[in-house]
Amino acid sequence: MNDKKIHCLILTKPANVTYLTGFSGEDSWAVITRRTLHLLTDSRYTEQAEGECRGCKIIQRDGPIAAATAKLTEKFKSVRTVHVEASASLSDFEALKKRVKVRLKPAAQVIEAVRLNKDSSEISAIRSAARIANRALGRVLRCIKPGITESELAGALDFEIHKLGARNSFETIVAFGPNASRPHHQPGRRKLKNNDSILIDFGARYNGYCSDLTRCFAVGRPSAYYKKVYEAVRQAQAAAIEMVSPGVDVLQVDQAARSVIRNAGLPVYGHGTGHGLGLEIHEGPVVSKEGKGKLKAGMVLTIEPGVYIPGRLGVRIEDDILVTENGFKILSRDSADEVKLAALSRTRRRN
Amino acid sequence: MNDKKIHCLILTKPANVTYLTGFSGEDSWAVITRRTLHLLTDSRYTEQAEGECRGCKIIQRDGPIAAATAKLTEKFKSVRTVHVEASASLSDFEALKKRVKVRLKPAAQVIEAVRLNKDSSEISAIRSAARIANRALGRVLRCIKPGITESELAGALDFEIHKLGARNSFETIVAFGPNASRPHHQPGRRKLKNNDSILIDFGARYNGYCSDLTRCFAVGRPSAYYKKVYEAVRQAQAAAIEMVSPGVDVLQVDQAARSVIRNAGLPVYGHGTGHGLGLEIHEGPVVSKEGKGKLKAGMVLTIEPGVYIPGRLGVRIEDDILVTENGFKILSRDSADEVKLAALSRTRRRN
Repeated sequence: MNDKKIHCLILTKPANVTYLTGFSGEDSWAVITRRTLHLLTDSRYTEQAEGECRGCKIIQRDGPIAAATAKLTEKFKSVRTVHVEASASLSDFEALKKRVKVRLKPAAQVIEAVRLNKDSSEISAIRSAARIANRALGRVLRCIKPGITESELAGALDFEIHKLGARNSFETIVAFGPNASRPHHQPGRRKLKNNDSILIDFGARYNGYCSDLTRCFAVGRPSAYYKKVYEAVRQAQAAAIEMVSPGVDVLQVDQAARSVIRNAGLPVYGHGTGHGLGLEIHEGPVVSKEGKGKLKAGMVLTIEPGVYIPGRLGVRIEDDILVTENGFKILSRDSADEVKLAALSRTRRRN
Repeated sequence: MNDKKIHCLILTKPANVTYLTGFSGEDSWAVITRRTLHLLTDSRYTEQAEGECRGCKIIQRDGPIAAATAKLTEKFKSVRTVHVEASASLSDFEALKKRVKVRLKPAAQVIEAVRLNKDSSEISAIRSAARIANRALGRVLRCIKPGITESELAGALDFEIHKLGARNSFETIVAFGPNASRPHHQPGRRKLKNNDSILIDFGARYNGYCSDLTRCFAVGRPSAYYKKVYEAVRQAQAAAIEMVSPGVDVLQVDQAARSVIRNAGLPVYGHGTGHGLGLEIHEGPVVSKEGKGKLKAGMVLTIEPGVYIPGRLGVRIEDDILVTENGFKILSRDSADEVKLAALSRTRRRN
């Protein structure tokens, strides 16, 4: 805030409110100055906020949140400009503008910039979230049989995540066969066949932090083409993961994966290669053709290349990667898997 | 749009995009003029959009969505002012402002105002969503035993909702005993005891449309105080529901529920009495102390008064109500339940 000459910032984005105050509910804003931190919530959440937020004053608002926020800012006599997060809506900004007596300005990516750098407790929460996701998937895979629908499989997976004390970090994607060519397919009534393929994109949220994984499986005998595609995606992912290191431009990571797919003669995916994750399922850094900046130690991001052939198949593999001082650590695989990945990648290089 | 003198409107809110185009994915905007409707999406969703959107041109964007949108608006030669939904973020508005060559202005509640009035297919989707929620709850209730945790119960309920071909309309709230005094409690490891109480606030989303129900149960022998509170909440809900009719001010509905609680000598809840629901779990009308306007036939709203005694108990009862030409219809109870509700309400009046 000092760097950006911000004296008072109104936070409206739930993840930023959680990050600063510890509050995990909804419909609440925070106001931060150089000396104070306030949470503005309502009676549904007051008891919860008192338990969750330390070092933070809790205001239980009665009327509109913009009115309570404006009233609070009047207490900060020396503040001449109040900033509002640029992620706020135009209507919230207008509601504040009507009521705040000093100048109001948007401020972009203030808390998001801090959140890029995860501390050890955040990394440990993401790792736990990934471990829960893997364990839930393991339990479900043991009882998958032809005849199960996409929707039932998604439900069973979500149930296991709940039983392990976590929540979903987003709505689970389960796609059988050619349905997987839609990267964000919604699970439906399609039944699993004897020779079929499965794509599962899912994650657990633990202590507020998200994991995000995609796994693909062949049921019965996979076609030679499926095997070829799977292998290309796996190598693309390995190439991008091995590129991860502090100081590396995100565009290089993006290109590393794309060039493997291109060189395999397969259509290059239109989505990004990866995204940061933490309190939000999508946060910085953006690893795509439009991505900007360099990786730094402490960032956590997904790497998730894919190949999509409409009417035929879809394969995507996604893991959660921590940028370390020396390179990377895969948070979503156990060490045995990492060895396999490294071996696979060596093989690729030798060829 | 004619009334508001809007010639071109950029829609960024997912529910509004879905409402106009039929598209059910994410990260996509729509642009509507008096003659055309465009959906701007990316490669993850193109195949899905082609299946879902009729009478709508699909643009697969490659770069930033604001750039693709601005480029599209240049095609509308006669348009001098482009409007953007007021629910858009300040940063999206800024990104558009940089690129759009004509004047850019926010427009509030354009599509939301139309969405207030549900047509028969929307009402039928909400009714199905409520039916699925009730059925899922019924299945889960049959196998609840002391020892189950809040989190497991929430997971089991979500699983049943999935098995019935729907999704959750929001994250299920399950609270045992005193935990229910936090209206938005997050299910945790608390185990159900022999004499205990349960609050479940949950909903199913079917064909995009939400239901939202809260049910409370006593396990074993409820205390006299719990019975008293439950009865007061039930009567408060009945009083508010019976008030529902076209032309009635939302404040009257809100007050009808509150005065029953107040007259019973119980603390009056701090949250609203209800909210509209449809494609979004919270939409217009707002039925609270800050609510404005009158009910109209075709609106669908929740009625959900509660009583919360920290450290002791929480009771809330919530149903989904359609405003009909002559009064109301409860979408979330079968007719037998409605009879009971009416009987209950008559008893109250007689006393």
